[in-house]
Amino acid sequence: MNLTGRNIIGFETFSEGTVAIQAINPASGETMPPLYYKATNDELQYAVEKGLKAFQIYRKKSGNEKAAFLEDIANEIDNLGDLLIERYMSESGLPQGRAIGERGRTTSQLRLFAQLLRDGSWVNARIDTALPERQPAPRPDLRSIEKPLGVVGIFGASNFPLAFSVAGGDTTSALAAGCCVIFKAHPAHLGTSELVGKAIQKAAAATNMPDGVFSLLFDDAHDIGTALVQHPEIKAIGFTGSFKGGKALFDLAMSRKEPIPVYAEMGSVNPVFVLPDIAQEKSSEIAQQYLGSVVLGVGQFCTNPGMLVIQKNDNFIKTLEHLSTEVQGGTMLTSGICDNYIKGIEKSKQFATIIGIGKKSSTLNSAEPIIFKTTALELVENPELGEEIFGPTSLVVEADSKEEIIAFAKSLDGHLTATVHGTEKDLKEYEELITILEQKVGRILLNGFPTGVEVSHAMVHGGPFPATTDARSTSVGTMAITRFTRPICYQNFPDELLPDELKSSNPLNIWRLVDGNWKK
Amino acid sequence: MNLTGRNIIGFETFSEGTVAIQAINPASGETMPPLYYKATNDELQYAVEKGLKAFQIYRKKSGNEKAAFLEDIANEIDNLGDLLIERYMSESGLPQGRAIGERGRTTSQLRLFAQLLRDGSWVNARIDTALPERQPAPRPDLRSIEKPLGVVGIFGASNFPLAFSVAGGDTTSALAAGCCVIFKAHPAHLGTSELVGKAIQKAAAATNMPDGVFSLLFDDAHDIGTALVQHPEIKAIGFTGSFKGGKALFDLAMSRKEPIPVYAEMGSVNPVFVLPDIAQEKSSEIAQQYLGSVVLGVGQFCTNPGMLVIQKNDNFIKTLEHLSTEVQGGTMLTSGICDNYIKGIEKSKQFATIIGIGKKSSTLNSAEPIIFKTTALELVENPELGEEIFGPTSLVVEADSKEEIIAFAKSLDGHLTATVHGTEKDLKEYEELITILEQKVGRILLNGFPTGVEVSHAMVHGGPFPATTDARSTSVGTMAITRFTRPICYQNFPDELLPDELKSSNPLNIWRLVDGNWKK
Repeated sequence: MNLTGRNIIGFETFSEGTVAIQAINPASGETMPPLYYKATNDELQYAVEKGLKAFQIYRKKSGNEKAAFLEDIANEIDNLGDLLIERYMSESGLPQGRAIGERGRTTSQLRLFAQLLRDGSWVNARIDTALPERQPAPRPDLRSIEKPLGVVGIFGASNFPLAFSVAGGDTTSALAAGCCVIFKAHPAHLGTSELVGKAIQKAAAATNMPDGVFSLLFDDAHDIGTALVQHPEIKAIGFTGSFKGGKALFDLAMSRKEPIPVYAEMGSVNPVFVLPDIAQEKSSEIAQQYLGSVVLGVGQFCTNPGMLVIQKNDNFIKTLEHLSTEVQGGTMLTSGICDNYIKGIEKSKQFATIIGIGKKSSTLNSAEPIIFKTTALELVENPELGEEIFGPTSLVVEADSKEEIIAFAKSLDGHLTATVHGTEKDLKEYEELITILEQKVGRILLNGFPTGVEVSHAMVHGGPFPATTDARSTSVGTMAITRFTRPICYQNFPDELLPDELKSSNPLNIWRLVDGNWKK
Repeated sequence: MNLTGRNIIGFETFSEGTVAIQAINPASGETMPPLYYKATNDELQYAVEKGLKAFQIYRKKSGNEKAAFLEDIANEIDNLGDLLIERYMSESGLPQGRAIGERGRTTSQLRLFAQLLRDGSWVNARIDTALPERQPAPRPDLRSIEKPLGVVGIFGASNFPLAFSVAGGDTTSALAAGCCVIFKAHPAHLGTSELVGKAIQKAAAATNMPDGVFSLLFDDAHDIGTALVQHPEIKAIGFTGSFKGGKALFDLAMSRKEPIPVYAEMGSVNPVFVLPDIAQEKSSEIAQQYLGSVVLGVGQFCTNPGMLVIQKNDNFIKTLEHLSTEVQGGTMLTSGICDNYIKGIEKSKQFATIIGIGKKSSTLNSAEPIIFKTTALELVENPELGEEIFGPTSLVVEADSKEEIIAFAKSLDGHLTATVHGTEKDLKEYEELITILEQKVGRILLNGFPTGVEVSHAMVHGGPFPATTDARSTSVGTMAITRFTRPICYQNFPDELLPDELKSSNPLNIWRLVDGNWKK
């Protein structure tokens, strides 16, 4: 497959724009062909019009039909083979192992949602049968089900060019829900985006999906994204990225004539608490795993542990001093991200002590891992120290007492995750800490590190503001599907006019809440 | 029980304010004792502080404990006996049958949510068991569950002094979810609010709920409501009322530093489509039921059928002309609501023809039912005709053709409900109409009228903007509970630290999604 640089609009491609954009290899600084052209407003409008038409067909596709589509996307991504892996690596600066791993995550995510659709029970079908004899008033027959919202806008994230991008979690859950997707590619991985966009286009045609079920638009900056959020026919937004970016999209969406849901996952500091007893017992093991988690993917994970809180422990600090010089940095995703990392580090240097500095690679835009330390009291004085720095850095916060740790936990904002390391004894003593933390995050972990975000049924990758703009949902895992649906109730419908999921004979054999009881 | 006029803050009562408010009987214009005093900002702050403390206890109450609380509220409401019914009638102008019916709706709503809590499966418990041997990476043990948001603010609605007020659907679902509630009473039914507030206070004490789980504040206008929405510790808002009111609260909440969910149900026109074949067959039956639905509760239902669309049918219009003079109006809830009704009617008179005028009662603030007609073409010219007029009026829209009906349906905004009357033949011919309408509403009905809103598991009382500010939920029925929760995921927690709902032995015997399969 040749890269063309053209916007994908349903089954067609276009390139009407005049503003050229080019992919840059962050490790070498070299630009890569082809030229992409920023989408025009006409192209966006055409994508929306096609999406609206397609939605009237796509929303009626069965679970099995949508499953076949998602599975075919996964197959087409696999079929891209080394072409995709190589483009991914040169656009992101990330190594081959990561590229292959992320491709696997992306395709198995598509296949997991396909399974969910074939199973069919996700629709939350509810039936309250008619009670015509009921006094004082009869009850009508009521049946409700989750239905797709319409055409939605999704934004590619810089840090996962596959798993949180064109065929990533947001697209997959929106398509699974029955929504049509207009995707705004991230300019940091244009070629990777086009390759995956073509895979979706091909799969849509092969599985008889309507023209317009998916479109992919390119942009160098914010114009097309802004127009997408403001388009009156767009019904929801998915985004993963910075607080600044996500909050701006949220504000735009809320000031529309018709406000729409915005699922912006805006990252967080993901505090890790290491309790006293385990800090004695497993000091060097925890230190090692912590550093591994900090530098994973050059620290460019939303769940990167940006802060570790520990009761004053010289031994642990010494171990970190020793180990942190050995950890390896690497090329960051873009020169802009690397510049911001350096700025963040410079700022932290003014307030915090350096524990250790890791190794840089010899490539361009290479980030040096760096571990800082401060005290809980100093952090209260300089709260900017607690802000996320996107990259392979973390701040160790030393506390003088349990009371200080508890008070600090209480002062936390919303985060995606919080982690506690503790022995049985620690956890008993710090029960209150867990109670506090679970009210601050979407996921709370014991004795692990937050950088692994499983794609499964129970995963919550979300959390209270400012970690996201909607804590009631997750952007990873099968629960993500209901971000793109709303319930509709059918009253006194004859069987033949009901969706299959609600027909009396339960032809799809799904779980349903019938008169208050779950039944199959 | 004597009315005191005091704000209820947890187990205490206060009356620190200086702005007096008094209940007015809308039928007689007489004021009723006692004097209520607008809550002060200090009182609000105290209620929030108590709520925050109470939340740390209340969020851990078991389903059975919360169920006992809700059931006791229902019992205490029943115990108020005639005192409540009489105060309700004199404050609302509504008749005894309605008062008793609405009390029954309110208490059975509380009891239904108690049942839901005793059953326990509503929490959407999900378990993905650990796969330590999985390649390339092991899967941790992941368990998630819906947990309450915190202290929430609920606003009383004018039109249901019991069922959408102090112990109404919003309060009930928020308390069931495990949230603490600060309730802003509607000034149109101060005494009814105090009586029910005291019932909740009494039930909370009797069932060992924490001081501050519920507070009730009075206000003559918008100050306390505004402060409530803007309070940084408030985590969600429930509201039923006008578009203007709901949208203002929504905008306030979105412009907070931390935006919070706003569930504002803002009413709608609830179009009813009468198809050609059934219009021949059952003209007079439909006309009669339609008029009954229009004047029910003096037309003060959110689901009042404000519009009926029909293919030109002189016979139906004649029947309406005849029947509409016989229908009975009555006292509206407040003089302000009655004034607005009269203004709306005057405006409609400029654009539409009158089919018939019903009877007024001899009381003050009595509304005259009035049925207008226009054509689909005229409605396109004068879209203000299609706006909701709160009260016993409705607009018959005559269309010239099926195409005109379909085009009109496509032009509709979001509504709570849409209704289609049709024979089997009609419904076959107008299948497209149903497809269009289900995308515009929260509930679609066949051959009925929308004014009955069942409190059950499958009910959706919601719908796309501008009917509500959040189409992903319902304000009536058991699904309303998840408006006040968010999912939390526990990773690698030992059984003893997990909520009972997630413990491996399933001690509560609830339905759970275990490795993708629903199990008990």
